[in-house]
Amino acid sequence: MAHGGDLGAARALFPEAPEPWIDLSTGINPVPYPCPALEASLWQRLPAAADAAALRAAAAEAYGAPDPDHVVPAPGTQILIETLPRLSPPARVAVIGPTYAEHAAAWARGGHAVVSVPELTAVGDAAIVVAVNPNNPDGRVLAGDELLALARDLGRRGGLLVVDEAFGDLEPAPSLAGALEPGLVVLRSFGKTYGLAGLRLGFALAVPETARGIAAALGPWAVSGPALAIGRAALADRAWRAEAAAARAADAARLDRMLARAGGAVVGGTCLFRLARFPDAPGLYDRLGAAGIYVRRFADRPDLLRFGLPADKGQWCRLSRVLR
Amino acid sequence: MAHGGDLGAARALFPEAPEPWIDLSTGINPVPYPCPALEASLWQRLPAAADAAALRAAAAEAYGAPDPDHVVPAPGTQILIETLPRLSPPARVAVIGPTYAEHAAAWARGGHAVVSVPELTAVGDAAIVVAVNPNNPDGRVLAGDELLALARDLGRRGGLLVVDEAFGDLEPAPSLAGALEPGLVVLRSFGKTYGLAGLRLGFALAVPETARGIAAALGPWAVSGPALAIGRAALADRAWRAEAAAARAADAARLDRMLARAGGAVVGGTCLFRLARFPDAPGLYDRLGAAGIYVRRFADRPDLLRFGLPADKGQWCRLSRVLR
Repeated sequence: MAHGGDLGAARALFPEAPEPWIDLSTGINPVPYPCPALEASLWQRLPAAADAAALRAAAAEAYGAPDPDHVVPAPGTQILIETLPRLSPPARVAVIGPTYAEHAAAWARGGHAVVSVPELTAVGDAAIVVAVNPNNPDGRVLAGDELLALARDLGRRGGLLVVDEAFGDLEPAPSLAGALEPGLVVLRSFGKTYGLAGLRLGFALAVPETARGIAAALGPWAVSGPALAIGRAALADRAWRAEAAAARAADAARLDRMLARAGGAVVGGTCLFRLARFPDAPGLYDRLGAAGIYVRRFADRPDLLRFGLPADKGQWCRLSRVLR
Repeated sequence: MAHGGDLGAARALFPEAPEPWIDLSTGINPVPYPCPALEASLWQRLPAAADAAALRAAAAEAYGAPDPDHVVPAPGTQILIETLPRLSPPARVAVIGPTYAEHAAAWARGGHAVVSVPELTAVGDAAIVVAVNPNNPDGRVLAGDELLALARDLGRRGGLLVVDEAFGDLEPAPSLAGALEPGLVVLRSFGKTYGLAGLRLGFALAVPETARGIAAALGPWAVSGPALAIGRAALADRAWRAEAAAARAADAARLDRMLARAGGAVVGGTCLFRLARFPDAPGLYDRLGAAGIYVRRFADRPDLLRFGLPADKGQWCRLSRVLR
């Protein structure tokens, strides 16, 4: 499956490109949270129950979940995407798409019958529905009340709505984290918002019974000591998050202007990535690659490119030169 | 389930004990591998395929596995213990025990029929057998040729032998990592040997087809960027591992003498922990706890205590005072 974020792949495609590469192939905040100094013991000892409890409390507060019993930390959201299908008996699964491809793939690997449908109204008799909100790669936002009504309906039938809010932290879009009920699991990504994707930290939010089942599948100590400590500090830092939301929204607007000047029609996105249609997207992809700038293309939509945000003035200048 | 390694639990049991606590409740090397300086990008970017490949190559070399395609890195061995039962259809599972309790619990949670048997010869018609070698907590070593014969027999029937070599790195006991075949999965723990349990790193070793299945269940990016880098450096450092094996074996011998002077009959162990029987183990447990020393006790074997290794001269002195 194609993913962004691996410059080894970029270098193989464009061996003559100048270094350093600019990686705009992901939706990871290019301005990371400033990591606090870490005690050596965080690396050395097994993470303690109290460390995990403190992180869960900080996450419940930051995401607006009712309490820490509704929070399951994991070593990245991806492993939650892999784990959820193994906790449900085989079912009909509808993924609202096109979207992040790992959802459908993981449910299929877990033995479920998976269909992709374009709208919430088209899920038919699926017992399990997966929606990414805001969506990746187009940023489409689904209505919170419609999602909640669907979760209630599915829950009554023993089904499940999974809402992946991976890109929700810095957006004004409403979250379902505060409206958890038996038929609903919300996923949140830490690494994207805080620019710390290598740390591996993500969360499932669910009613306590469901949360306990997910936590048991991961086992104790799934999250590293450094991730527990950094996650706790970052999630409690509301001021940083508010400033990041404002700064990245400004960056996204600047990127939109730049894409428009290059003939791009911005289809959508979030404040961490922008999706645009170009008259000659493959040609632009190649010009960017030759200039050492790695963006995301889509095999089934060759007219689209997705751009993450440049990190600093130098990166903005290099991007601007190609998009001029 | 009771586990060592959580001083919060120790403090709750012995609120009057002096700080700092000495944690001898685990089998983690108390002298950690000196972590190399980490580039900030290891925290920030998604771990790249090349990073994971380099770690798998270092692990294959260190463990004696045929090649990197036989190696699956994971965020700790525990999540592999949770994952394996979800990859097999319901079966009869025999765990050679008593042993680390998470194995039987994970297979039972995965819907399998689990029995504990004392010997390899007693596994009966189990399709899946789990052995910890050397065993935790008693250090018993099973014969490599008997394990291999069982793996072949199980493999022919579509079954599986899981050999958890969590404590094998610093021991002379033979490993099955060099004799992988379709009916065999070997688990290795990084954090115990290298004193970096908070990093969360462990490995499954298996034939490539099996390895791919385990890797798919964890998904891409399950291991953090820092763990990939530190693991790669540490596993390639043969000199450090040889010195650690010699130094911890000397520590273990010293601890045995100290336990014997206190009336303990050492039952066994590895060079990272020792198990001993005491005339009044509960009384000794309480004296140690009151002195701020946390060791491992066993609900079903109140005559036994397990001791990890003190980290430095001060810890040896405090332990010696209680054991005198």
